[in-house]
Amino acid sequence: KINGSRLWDSLMEMARIGPGIAGGNNRQTLTDDDATGRALFQKWCEEAGMSMGVDQIGNMFAYREGTDPDALPVYAGSHLDTQPTGGKYDGVLGVLGALEVVRSMNDLGIKTKHPIVVVNWTNEEGTRYAPAMLASGVFAGKHELDWAYDRVDAEGKRFGDELERIGWKGDEEVGARKIHALFELHIEQGPILEAEGKDIGVVTHGQGLRWIECTVTGKESHTGSTPMPMRLNAGRGLARITELVHEIAMKHQPNSVGAIGHIDVYPNSRNIIPGKVVFTVDFRSHIQETIDAMLEEFYERAPKLCEEIGVKFESKISGSFDPPAFNEDCVKAVRAAAERLGYSHMDIVSGAGHDACWINDVAPTSMIMCPCVDGLSHNEAEDISPEWAEAGANVLFHAVLETAEI
Amino acid sequence: KINGSRLWDSLMEMARIGPGIAGGNNRQTLTDDDATGRALFQKWCEEAGMSMGVDQIGNMFAYREGTDPDALPVYAGSHLDTQPTGGKYDGVLGVLGALEVVRSMNDLGIKTKHPIVVVNWTNEEGTRYAPAMLASGVFAGKHELDWAYDRVDAEGKRFGDELERIGWKGDEEVGARKIHALFELHIEQGPILEAEGKDIGVVTHGQGLRWIECTVTGKESHTGSTPMPMRLNAGRGLARITELVHEIAMKHQPNSVGAIGHIDVYPNSRNIIPGKVVFTVDFRSHIQETIDAMLEEFYERAPKLCEEIGVKFESKISGSFDPPAFNEDCVKAVRAAAERLGYSHMDIVSGAGHDACWINDVAPTSMIMCPCVDGLSHNEAEDISPEWAEAGANVLFHAVLETAEI
Ligand SMILES: NC(=O)NCCC(=O)O
Ligand SMILES: NC(=O)NCCC(=O)O
Repeated sequence: KINGSRLWDSLMEMARIGPGIAGGNNRQTLTDDDATGRALFQKWCEEAGMSMGVDQIGNMFAYREGTDPDALPVYAGSHLDTQPTGGKYDGVLGVLGALEVVRSMNDLGIKTKHPIVVVNWTNEEGTRYAPAMLASGVFAGKHELDWAYDRVDAEGKRFGDELERIGWKGDEEVGARKIHALFELHIEQGPILEAEGKDIGVVTHGQGLRWIECTVTGKESHTGSTPMPMRLNAGRGLARITELVHEIAMKHQPNSVGAIGHIDVYPNSRNIIPGKVVFTVDFRSHIQETIDAMLEEFYERAPKLCEEIGVKFESKISGSFDPPAFNEDCVKAVRAAAERLGYSHMDIVSGAGHDACWINDVAPTSMIMCPCVDGLSHNEAEDISPEWAEAGANVLFHAVLETAEI
Repeated sequence: KINGSRLWDSLMEMARIGPGIAGGNNRQTLTDDDATGRALFQKWCEEAGMSMGVDQIGNMFAYREGTDPDALPVYAGSHLDTQPTGGKYDGVLGVLGALEVVRSMNDLGIKTKHPIVVVNWTNEEGTRYAPAMLASGVFAGKHELDWAYDRVDAEGKRFGDELERIGWKGDEEVGARKIHALFELHIEQGPILEAEGKDIGVVTHGQGLRWIECTVTGKESHTGSTPMPMRLNAGRGLARITELVHEIAMKHQPNSVGAIGHIDVYPNSRNIIPGKVVFTVDFRSHIQETIDAMLEEFYERAPKLCEEIGVKFESKISGSFDPPAFNEDCVKAVRAAAERLGYSHMDIVSGAGHDACWINDVAPTSMIMCPCVDGLSHNEAEDISPEWAEAGANVLFHAVLETAEI
């Protein structure tokens, strides 16, 4: 078994970097705080006897030797970046849980045939730079590296420039590594495990996602002196599409979700009718046909809702992945580990996207989930118990041991 | 008659300070560009033989002596601050038109019994610091000076601190001046004069206004892993209220307008369901009963629309004035001037709020309007013709002359 209190202490120490305003974290990707968190992680990895490799998109790979020089490594990890108002565990548990697995192997004098790599993927959250899971996506060949470099944040700063600025652009070619198998431990970020009273979620599938960046264009004009019939109010386009997204997602219950999280209003002045609103729709389902049906209805109705009130609707896809089905052997290894350790468990679908969803396309992959309080995540109040964290890391330990072979 | 081309040149020179991104201006109140604009105005006033007084809220009063030492001054002016994406004429025409009146009096060797004061009111627009017409409101006793100083902008900067920082906090007590009469020339900011083919609007009334700052609170959580029934989406509260405001304003046509111009979404991340949205509703009518009826319906229905979807609605009034009826003698002076000069004219209600609306409560006041292209204002594409500007300034000239007595 792993050392639960050491894991917890490391989680708490990492959480001191980039504190939020309400007890959580704001350690967004490629900020100074991200760099500080990376340095602490590297120090810990080196103290655990691992050597660090960094690729050209800043993914960090801490390497522990195996006994067979020809065996491909078993990977475990997640991400250290957070939402602007994020929790202390989303991503971090998966990275530090994997670190704890190696520390425990060291304590117990365990050697594995396959090397072990603890990984921290760059920009999983996708808030500062859309899309989410950007760097694991480049690793898996979903995006071009240069395209990723050219992403810009709200202030116009390029991803590639910020990566260099914080000093974490490595030399290694992105995606050159071969992976024997990958396991990602993550908090559920939803309410199911807690409601069902289970210690462990054995993740068999994930939801697919479409992010649709929409621009509604009207005409900015005076709120007081523009007669009602002359108005082209882009804010009403947003309003109608907000309700449309909700309505569409409600049609496919319980297999779908949909909402708008990001909204920019131009020029955003109390006495100017919005001339332009830019916002991103997030639709998800673990069923491909449901995603297709939601998008079809959206593209059919959204432009009409705008046309009816004289404003223009434009859109483009800014994030997209299909529902992943995780590798059967890896899923079995997780289920067997939970069973062996006597944890209550259930099969579950991941509601969120994860780096493991991309890696699943290039290597055998699966995920382990632990509950989180009230299903709350992407919120500073996100919470888990030390026991949940310990159970998750123990299952990760056993799944990795089984796959890496003692 | 005034010198139309000199007026136009001054308008164009002022427009070079704080240029926008699309041909208009971004010279928001208490910015460095506001200070630069003020300095240019002061220089021009001094060149025209006037002396400048500045009060403790930064209102600028350029004084031209009269022949009767006991006569109260006739005031003319407007504001030099602009919207973030504002036009070159909104406010500026009224200030520089009044300056042109004095320049023309100098050219023609005209002396008046009453002194003339050309005034530039601070923070008319209300974008950076709500409410609009803040400094004329303090002048007219509607707000306390200290309350005005404590207004904060989106970055948390205090009005009082910014006023000191740009160096335009004067010594004069705000509102201590006595006013014989005040005239404000302004672009219509609406489509009526152009549609009716009139050179001049004789402003008899203004619309009253209520700004309702609303906060809708839900629960920020993950867009992917939060099941639809568990969501408390504050963005949906905004959507429903956006349509409610439109619906209410449409009920009282053509005597009402309503819209939401300013919206802040928290935390504004693509994969976080909005936990909080703060926005300002702007309702207006020139009929007090209509304003009351709109507010009653809004307060009745808005909380319910939020309750139905589990989010909390709170609101407070952040701007408020009742529909003004301008002084009959001043209105007559404007109408007579337009008549005498042979301009086509019509009586009109001001759709926007103006400093004159506040001053109307403490001194005889009226306004002169000139058309603007497509009724467009609070938009960088705001436009007027030199002829319209000249006609407006000529009417101002004659109304001031008649009231100040030669
Ligand atoms: N796990 C997680 O929150 N990832 C961010 C990508 C997503 O929105 O699902
Ligand atoms: N004239 C003008 O646009 N004033 C700003 C106050 C208002 O919104 O009416």
